[in-house]
Amino acid sequence: MGEVPPHADRKSVWLDCDPGHDDALAIILAGYDSRLRLLGVSTVAGNQTVEKVTLNALGLLTAAGLHSIPVVQGQAKPLMRPAQICPAIHGESGLEFLDGSSMQDYAVGSPVNEKAVLYMHSCISSHAESQPVALVCTGALTNAALLVSLFPELLPKIEIVLMGGCLGTGNTGSVAEFNIQSDPEAAKIVFECGAPVTMVPLEVTHTALATPAVLQRLSVRSTPFLGLMRKLLLFFAQTYREVFSFEHPPLHDPLAVFYVACPEAFKVKRMRVDIETSSPLSAGQTVCDIWGRSPLGPNATVALEADVDSFWESMIAAVMKADMVSPLNSPKNPV
Amino acid sequence: MGEVPPHADRKSVWLDCDPGHDDALAIILAGYDSRLRLLGVSTVAGNQTVEKVTLNALGLLTAAGLHSIPVVQGQAKPLMRPAQICPAIHGESGLEFLDGSSMQDYAVGSPVNEKAVLYMHSCISSHAESQPVALVCTGALTNAALLVSLFPELLPKIEIVLMGGCLGTGNTGSVAEFNIQSDPEAAKIVFECGAPVTMVPLEVTHTALATPAVLQRLSVRSTPFLGLMRKLLLFFAQTYREVFSFEHPPLHDPLAVFYVACPEAFKVKRMRVDIETSSPLSAGQTVCDIWGRSPLGPNATVALEADVDSFWESMIAAVMKADMVSPLNSPKNPV
Amino acid sequence: MGEVPPHADRKSVWLDCDPGHDDALAIILAGYDSRLRLLGVSTVAGNQTVEKVTLNALGLLTAAGLHSIPVVQGQAKPLMRPAQICPAIHGESGLEFLDGSSMQDYAVGSPVNEKAVLYMHSCISSHAESQPVALVCTGALTNAALLVSLFPELLPKIEIVLMGGCLGTGNTGSVAEFNIQSDPEAAKIVFECGAPVTMVPLEVTHTALATPAVLQRLSVRSTPFLGLMRKLLLFFAQTYREVFSFEHPPLHDPLAVFYVACPEAFKVKRMRVDIETSSPLSAGQTVCDIWGRSPLGPNATVALEADVDSFWESMIAAVMKADMVSPLNSPKNPV
Amino acid sequence: MGEVPPHADRKSVWLDCDPGHDDALAIILAGYDSRLRLLGVSTVAGNQTVEKVTLNALGLLTAAGLHSIPVVQGQAKPLMRPAQICPAIHGESGLEFLDGSSMQDYAVGSPVNEKAVLYMHSCISSHAESQPVALVCTGALTNAALLVSLFPELLPKIEIVLMGGCLGTGNTGSVAEFNIQSDPEAAKIVFECGAPVTMVPLEVTHTALATPAVLQRLSVRSTPFLGLMRKLLLFFAQTYREVFSFEHPPLHDPLAVFYVACPEAFKVKRMRVDIETSSPLSAGQTVCDIWGRSPLGPNATVALEADVDSFWESMIAAVMKADMVSPLNSPKNPV
Repeated sequence: MGEVPPHADRKSVWLDCDPGHDDALAIILAGYDSRLRLLGVSTVAGNQTVEKVTLNALGLLTAAGLHSIPVVQGQAKPLMRPAQICPAIHGESGLEFLDGSSMQDYAVGSPVNEKAVLYMHSCISSHAESQPVALVCTGALTNAALLVSLFPELLPKIEIVLMGGCLGTGNTGSVAEFNIQSDPEAAKIVFECGAPVTMVPLEVTHTALATPAVLQRLSVRSTPFLGLMRKLLLFFAQTYREVFSFEHPPLHDPLAVFYVACPEAFKVKRMRVDIETSSPLSAGQTVCDIWGRSPLGPNATVALEADVDSFWESMIAAVMKADMVSPLNSPKNPV
Repeated sequence: MGEVPPHADRKSVWLDCDPGHDDALAIILAGYDSRLRLLGVSTVAGNQTVEKVTLNALGLLTAAGLHSIPVVQGQAKPLMRPAQICPAIHGESGLEFLDGSSMQDYAVGSPVNEKAVLYMHSCISSHAESQPVALVCTGALTNAALLVSLFPELLPKIEIVLMGGCLGTGNTGSVAEFNIQSDPEAAKIVFECGAPVTMVPLEVTHTALATPAVLQRLSVRSTPFLGLMRKLLLFFAQTYREVFSFEHPPLHDPLAVFYVACPEAFKVKRMRVDIETSSPLSAGQTVCDIWGRSPLGPNATVALEADVDSFWESMIAAVMKADMVSPLNSPKNPV
Repeated sequence: MGEVPPHADRKSVWLDCDPGHDDALAIILAGYDSRLRLLGVSTVAGNQTVEKVTLNALGLLTAAGLHSIPVVQGQAKPLMRPAQICPAIHGESGLEFLDGSSMQDYAVGSPVNEKAVLYMHSCISSHAESQPVALVCTGALTNAALLVSLFPELLPKIEIVLMGGCLGTGNTGSVAEFNIQSDPEAAKIVFECGAPVTMVPLEVTHTALATPAVLQRLSVRSTPFLGLMRKLLLFFAQTYREVFSFEHPPLHDPLAVFYVACPEAFKVKRMRVDIETSSPLSAGQTVCDIWGRSPLGPNATVALEADVDSFWESMIAAVMKADMVSPLNSPKNPV
Repeated sequence: MGEVPPHADRKSVWLDCDPGHDDALAIILAGYDSRLRLLGVSTVAGNQTVEKVTLNALGLLTAAGLHSIPVVQGQAKPLMRPAQICPAIHGESGLEFLDGSSMQDYAVGSPVNEKAVLYMHSCISSHAESQPVALVCTGALTNAALLVSLFPELLPKIEIVLMGGCLGTGNTGSVAEFNIQSDPEAAKIVFECGAPVTMVPLEVTHTALATPAVLQRLSVRSTPFLGLMRKLLLFFAQTYREVFSFEHPPLHDPLAVFYVACPEAFKVKRMRVDIETSSPLSAGQTVCDIWGRSPLGPNATVALEADVDSFWESMIAAVMKADMVSPLNSPKNPV
């Protein structure tokens, strides 16, 4: 594969997530996009309990032929609030399929036997010599907040790219998005930590819809792995239709990975983003100073638009690479 | 004018406002739309001090041939906060023109010598026998809040229609609109008072733009009054361009009057609207329960879309009627 | 009664209250202290519904020979919150006795047929020529807040003295006192209105205990009226013992009246007092800047200590005067 | 010293502090009270920057003959707020004397080369086999909050005893005490972590005054170490007199250590304690449910009174033991 850049030319990525259907695709994109080098995956309570999403991460990595990527389990609850999970969207297992099976059925191996925050610190430290590591967060920001609180010396060595927040209407809250609403205090710590922060909000991710045309492109081959991908998207489509009346489900999380791979596909704006932590009406809102009036300077880059076609090119290319090596497609695969 | 319905068939309207360029057009629409009967105009601190906006109301009513409509001066400051004015958008006088003149130059007569809240109470009480009076608010809700607090027996006799709030991005605040942000506590009182409340938010008013085509339609005659209307829109266009980078200025306030005249021109949704009164980040935000998740039932009708063409038909028809009777157009007019 | 100063030398007092056992004694003190001239009594929802406390006011005024004092009914609920009542302390009627009878059994006549806020305005305006009228508030500050909001021209003509607030531990709240907690927004309006405000907090009123010695002094004569006063104190003693484990009940409200009659009996300090209106933990707290660190200047005089002996002298003298003229003591009294 | 209990009978203590004059005495008490076994000392930003208070800890341990106790440097700032220091009370160095010298002049050696939170975890884990380790916190709760967040498995192995909070008037805030006010979010995490929490508030520590009689007892010998102790108390006495008008300075921090050594010397009450994190008026207030009305169960033991004589016996005994071994008193001491 001569077109693959050598490691030194790739951007190092650590992916902190709570798989989750869209997180699964984020992992595949991080694992197979030729511009990225995935160092590891940490998990955090969110779409489901941290134990379940860790199994889902292991299952996805196994199924996608990424078993060499370390998985490490992170925080089981937000910093100052009880854990909220989201079975209405992701099912009881957190990565459920319509036939009742789930991604954790594919889990092989076990997570690294260390706290996520501590392992992230050592892994990121050792890979950030020449250029910062991109810490991509597609779940609640609990792990990230503890990481930057306990290891502020890491701040010059990372850039943080997160799926979360919104400028207008929220999803799980009237004006708040699920990942930020889950742990608003962690989000406040991360947005104010001093490292470069890029936020990919609902307004962008709601444009990356898994339409029938997308599903069609995943049907070019009839392999078990592509079948799994279609099952994944069909489940997500159904819950999004029922809960939010979306015709096609939005693929939130891979957009944050795609930003690291291809920032030029995004229209962005630097601005002040404050996190509401106190109001019962709007806790977890990302109050975006769109008019530039805050006396505080900008602390975040906010994605306003994405080149969705370009995203799907990269996303589907990554899935196809996974399909090439997925053990599910092996004749010996017992699953 | 045989097509004008008799008084009994018109909807009685009291207009509570802070003129203000767009308030001026709201007054004209309320005064001349054939479906409405304007009982009176009260003022409130907002776009400028209450003294200035009262003079502006008197000036506009005089210029528009509506001098028989009573004007009464209301509250000089919000319930719990200092007054905020908005000279960047409406000029020093609150209804300024580019040539330095202002609407108050046309003021003749004086306001009713009574507190607005008390006069509103007696006027609305005496006109609400057969059907409720529409209390249209296009400024801060201070007068309205005191009215319903002091005279709760009025609640079954009114419906409240207000220009204000937003579902997403605000104008003077990141997530708050100016009228609500000016007096959030008054807004909370009004939204929770128990009378029917309809909110016409920024998302709707930002579709009613005074484009060159609109200005063109105000140029069919070269009367002094139409000239004044064009001056008014040109000033507003300039400040909106400078402050918000709008190509054409949105005519917020008349949309609330138009809703009373023609509710069928609006797509609306019943929902819970909570007013943020405490957060420094978002005080004055109208948190709209768009997903229907609040344990509290709906307390407001929120306009989501308006038939803008239909609005402009009514608006321009009203201006043209005013032009027919404006004393500015009289040969003896000394102005 | 040669020792009674002529009207011109007495301080005019309007009493705004929610009787309530201790309010009853406040009315007697305001009605009979020789240094005071009681203009009228307004009521507000608090210890019980406004209808009940209005009846209680009428009953007490009748029983105490003060039937010439006008009573006017005020607001039925706080500005922005539902009404809270306090039957655990004052009984179902709001001024209950242990034998199941209540003060409203004595009510004769009816309240003035006008809104309290409007009547207070005209009465206070017409009596404030030479010196300010003392507006004494011993309930929630709803009436007072509307009065100063609607009639800011009254501010130079009044001084406000209120029983309420605390520097430390609250009563109905962990850190909030009942009157302020009932309507924190009204309290904020009053404390920031610009008129002189004096606060007599729990720390002071908790030193004015109705001990057995006090009851003893009310037993010198065996008249029906003094019997009623003892019944009143015995009920209050019992509920305070049960709810707050107080050995003897504190007479909160008359202290605020006593401050107007005899300010030299109090140790006070000028300071900034901010009212908490947002926190669910402490709404209604009077945050007293005891260390003088607020960037905002002082807005209140806070009573820190009172000469309790002197208070009881005045209080018992007032009760004894009432006993001289109480119709309950007349042979023809049908009650 | 036959009366010293063997290690197994002593309570293991980890002391997390920000020395600070009163922290210094807390270290001495923890180091020399015969009922305690001091495992180590961690530092946190508070009275001064974490670098300065770490030097102060080293200096005090050296001077007091406790150089074998490990010192480890903790968090440099609160979780979600900028660091606040308190030079008005503790001087520029954080542990200053009136002659301009400071405790850090005595520092020998250096702190353990690890993060405090990580070292605390391993040290406490390894010493908590038979009975919980007492984590005594006499500064902001930042280290403690991170410890319990990152290592929830430690919760059954610790009890937390902290100097901080107040039921009524605060010190650096109107209603908030310095340690809690410095990092309210950390305090909220700690109070709600699930481990046993005991709070020794200002109301108790303000009774432990370093009176002239106390100073007299430190003058029985004229050793350099006792001289240092007197210098320490004299500086503290002066700043407390100037800032708070206290006649004698209160020794806050050792009371928390004393609680671990001798809980029977305290009158306490179990109750709900909520930490205010949002209100600008009262952030850092410990809202104590003294009336037992919170729907949430008790989460803290609050000290209400202490046997001050007993405290001084223990405190002075500890100082005297330190004086026996202090290297300052050695003929070879070069300081």
